[in-house]
Amino acid sequence: MTPKYKLIYFNTYGRAEPLRYIFAYAGQDYVYEIIEKENWPKLKPNTPYGQLPVLEVDGKPAAQTTAIARYLAKQFNIQGKDDWEILQADSLVEALADYRACAKRLYTEQNPEKIAEIKKERAKYLEKFDTILSSNPSGVLVGSEITWADLVFAAVLSGRQDDLEDRSTALTNLIDKINNIPNIKSWLQARSMWIRKIIK
Amino acid sequence: MTPKYKLIYFNTYGRAEPLRYIFAYAGQDYVYEIIEKENWPKLKPNTPYGQLPVLEVDGKPAAQTTAIARYLAKQFNIQGKDDWEILQADSLVEALADYRACAKRLYTEQNPEKIAEIKKERAKYLEKFDTILSSNPSGVLVGSEITWADLVFAAVLSGRQDDLEDRSTALTNLIDKINNIPNIKSWLQARSMWIRKIIK
Repeated sequence: MTPKYKLIYFNTYGRAEPLRYIFAYAGQDYVYEIIEKENWPKLKPNTPYGQLPVLEVDGKPAAQTTAIARYLAKQFNIQGKDDWEILQADSLVEALADYRACAKRLYTEQNPEKIAEIKKERAKYLEKFDTILSSNPSGVLVGSEITWADLVFAAVLSGRQDDLEDRSTALTNLIDKINNIPNIKSWLQARSMWIRKIIK
Repeated sequence: MTPKYKLIYFNTYGRAEPLRYIFAYAGQDYVYEIIEKENWPKLKPNTPYGQLPVLEVDGKPAAQTTAIARYLAKQFNIQGKDDWEILQADSLVEALADYRACAKRLYTEQNPEKIAEIKKERAKYLEKFDTILSSNPSGVLVGSEITWADLVFAAVLSGRQDDLEDRSTALTNLIDKINNIPNIKSWLQARSMWIRKIIK
């Protein structure tokens, strides 16, 4: 029996968006509980690590976005076809986290030389992603079918505009392809209205 | 048939140590290729993400420490007993990465007030880890047996002395327990001599 999923997060895209992409792609309904900023301090100590998102599966809470994403990917059979594909997808998602940590430094860095260095490092990540993607004739990151890695990449990179000049055509095409899958497209339309989905 | 494993890293503990703990715990031989610092710039562009460690499995390279660790954990049946345990272990390892990112800020932060804040945040992580560990009568992080999460925690936390005052007895006991498993103990003795293990 399919469990009941409840995703708890703020009223924003942020770290929960890869999870929403995965739910949408799988066509899996879930309750989306929005936490208003003013209620967060009260709730925070009761979450596993003092952070959101939290996913409840039949009422049991789990934390850490990527761990949750991987768990859902397994439930929906988009983790990769064998252990080696699973490793490739994990590796890409972990590298994307490195890319984000790198890009994040741009928010606080003031020194123009250091900014240039960070941008160069960021471009290197995008180049590596392109190498992997371009060498795969299937037009996806891993193997011959869409995995959660493609969904996480599309969710994260769709939310950014600051590195567009460094993205390859292959990477841009992948993001467009994912965002045009009917289930994802519906979610992207729905999210602009912030519909709260309730499982009956 | 067991594949041939080659772990490629520098002549230091660093990010490869959790992988060495996992190999040691599983009693799995592997080639450990040490990259001398002066040879690294030449090798760097040929690695998947310009980083080490890299693991080769029958000659095929894979990158990203945690992805590799998870893959090995699966091969050696220490990933967790079911999907929920696997999620818990993943979640803990991801939270440990957050803890490290938090602790890392202490290396560069100069402002005493901010240092105090970071230390407080770091202590919060250790407290959360303790809550999880202490609520499990098995004395391990997840379920009733040792998983890769215990090994990663022991490998990472054994390498740090700067937060000892904030560690609970339960956490210290776990680290001691892992470091006293005969296979791990042998590795800890061997590593002090940096023995290069070669599969015959």
